[in-house]
Amino acid sequence: MPKISSRGEHMPASPIRKLVPYAEKAKKRGVKVYHLNIGQPDIKTPEVALEAIRNFDGKVIEYSLSEGIASYRHELAAYYKKHQIDITENQLIITTGGSEAINFILGSCMDPGDEIIIPEPYYANYKGFCTAYAVNVVPVTSSIEDGFALPPIQDFEKHITERTKAIMICNPGNPTGYLYSEEELMLLRDLVMKHNLYLIADEVYREFCYDGATHHSILNVPGLDQHAIVVDSVSKRYSMCGVRIGCLITRNEDVLKTAMKFAQARLSPPTFGQIAAQAALNTPDEYFHEVIAEYVNRRNVLVEGLNSIEGVKCPTPKGAFYCVAELPVDDADHFAAWLLKDFDLNGETVMLAPASGFYSTAGLGKTQVRVAYVLNIPSLKKSVEILRAALIAYKNRS
Amino acid sequence: MPKISSRGEHMPASPIRKLVPYAEKAKKRGVKVYHLNIGQPDIKTPEVALEAIRNFDGKVIEYSLSEGIASYRHELAAYYKKHQIDITENQLIITTGGSEAINFILGSCMDPGDEIIIPEPYYANYKGFCTAYAVNVVPVTSSIEDGFALPPIQDFEKHITERTKAIMICNPGNPTGYLYSEEELMLLRDLVMKHNLYLIADEVYREFCYDGATHHSILNVPGLDQHAIVVDSVSKRYSMCGVRIGCLITRNEDVLKTAMKFAQARLSPPTFGQIAAQAALNTPDEYFHEVIAEYVNRRNVLVEGLNSIEGVKCPTPKGAFYCVAELPVDDADHFAAWLLKDFDLNGETVMLAPASGFYSTAGLGKTQVRVAYVLNIPSLKKSVEILRAALIAYKNRS
Repeated sequence: MPKISSRGEHMPASPIRKLVPYAEKAKKRGVKVYHLNIGQPDIKTPEVALEAIRNFDGKVIEYSLSEGIASYRHELAAYYKKHQIDITENQLIITTGGSEAINFILGSCMDPGDEIIIPEPYYANYKGFCTAYAVNVVPVTSSIEDGFALPPIQDFEKHITERTKAIMICNPGNPTGYLYSEEELMLLRDLVMKHNLYLIADEVYREFCYDGATHHSILNVPGLDQHAIVVDSVSKRYSMCGVRIGCLITRNEDVLKTAMKFAQARLSPPTFGQIAAQAALNTPDEYFHEVIAEYVNRRNVLVEGLNSIEGVKCPTPKGAFYCVAELPVDDADHFAAWLLKDFDLNGETVMLAPASGFYSTAGLGKTQVRVAYVLNIPSLKKSVEILRAALIAYKNRS
Repeated sequence: MPKISSRGEHMPASPIRKLVPYAEKAKKRGVKVYHLNIGQPDIKTPEVALEAIRNFDGKVIEYSLSEGIASYRHELAAYYKKHQIDITENQLIITTGGSEAINFILGSCMDPGDEIIIPEPYYANYKGFCTAYAVNVVPVTSSIEDGFALPPIQDFEKHITERTKAIMICNPGNPTGYLYSEEELMLLRDLVMKHNLYLIADEVYREFCYDGATHHSILNVPGLDQHAIVVDSVSKRYSMCGVRIGCLITRNEDVLKTAMKFAQARLSPPTFGQIAAQAALNTPDEYFHEVIAEYVNRRNVLVEGLNSIEGVKCPTPKGAFYCVAELPVDDADHFAAWLLKDFDLNGETVMLAPASGFYSTAGLGKTQVRVAYVLNIPSLKKSVEILRAALIAYKNRS
């Protein structure tokens, strides 16, 4: 029997994959599971987008252009201009989700054996994409003590080698919710310019900034035109993860030209998704006001709730809809499995994402979990109470 | 300025990319261009699929499962059973087009520097996917003289090295339209079993077999359970290229498990595309009868027309909707550009895909073109007459 590849063997499984069968069994036992483990929001997709799909009157569902539907790219550039990001439609390529944008960037900018520096904890699938492209992730550890702020810039610098090609951030961050300040971005700028590296920013949570905080795109950091590459996606912005539409944005023409060859090889991004995403550009502003207000409330309920539990520590994130919490347990993987296998509070339990899967450094994150606040407030309140009771029961278990 | 990667530099551009600006200029001059260069059929998408999209009544466009919507996988397995391919829903993973299935296979089965043997001419984007995954394509040349049949099996065997991991075919073939016989598949079987290789077959044109010919899937070749991996797509079957839905099929559990990790990293295939593809499974049989009858007529008009031109030679393909023709020119790339830049017959011209882009071996295919018969019969007749006049004018040009 032929063997699978070494990269296939090293391809990481999803951090919650081991837990899925336990969750299914819990449900079969009649236990209700609150899913704090996922990034699938319950927020409704804007009506304008759904309507565009229902009104589709084409007779043939054709390929779009490889770079995306021309009118969508045009209107999308206008969306960025409205958000103070001055780019043209020729500086963006429509991709199949933010995921594909990352793949195009890895392929265009990095060769097998090259290195990319990423502050950890980071979105677990970055590791998967890098493994697929045989690129090595070099982690720089951020700390829950300072809310997962940018690690000291010397920590980045000391990991730079001949093979380092890029630094990648997620801003605001999944899983931490941390929003980088302008000063932090300037530090990264100086570093990538000094060492002639790419700076890649996953900015898919741009709209989700709280407490009056401002999002700073790396596209607006002076001097980075040839270095900055942004990954974007409409999945979270319009609560339409299933359309699989993202984009790659850069002013670096060589990168654009090269990424276009990757785009042409796969022919086109999904046509229906682009139709929905283009229509979603007309989403009324109130939609976002309501959604942001809802997420702020959810965050407050969750983070205050978590911090009210003895031994739990959770910084208050300024963006996205995740937080990473420290739990009074030795092994969050074991605890998360136990919650599904052996615990319920009046027939209910919670599913958490153990944070170890978001770290590259072995042994880190063992006592942390990622909690997504994509459930409504009554469910989040229930979840906090379940977790409070569970931690006591877990400590006292025989 | 940071440099692009070596694989990015080597990523091939689309074989017709250079021609696109010429085609645009021709249209601006008022010249009508018949597109014989593309694989975008003009056939209507089945009404059942369009209807399912128009009737979408969800409120949130959610991620699907990474392996695809459960009910779609279930019904898709039944579709294969109906076509005498005995697989279960657990032996298939829904992908974003056939393209993504190929990427998952390359990542799961091959490491950077590994080799894959492919008979040439082959679908040009295979080269792109392999370049992205740093896998080396080793071509084995098939010949227009015998209609692009499988090259002698010794030609494959002599290219097998320590790094060879797989042989890949497209059946029926793009760009040749060649349909492999059961005997040819048995020869490939013996070879991959002898050398413990994967056999990968792109079978996206399965339905498009003519003159009563039968399609033989590698999934039905005895002994290949651990070796055979099939790439499929609904793009051509239901004329809905824009939905971006394909699948990977294998009975090899290690490959399935590994490919699932790649699938999880990118979260999910497009939701709307899956809805359309699932509904399309209910396409009435008459749809295919009509479509196949139409393609047979088109093929006959085109191939007979081409062979009626002095100096043109074109084997009659038994499947897909392409053929490769030998033209009486020295350089088909130059001729294809000239057709768009410097020629018209009463205000009309044709766009061809030069075949050199479908070969890996330098210098091959210089006098060949791929012609797609995805236009209606009057357009194909016109195209043949344009080509006849063009070849005379080209020969006599000053």
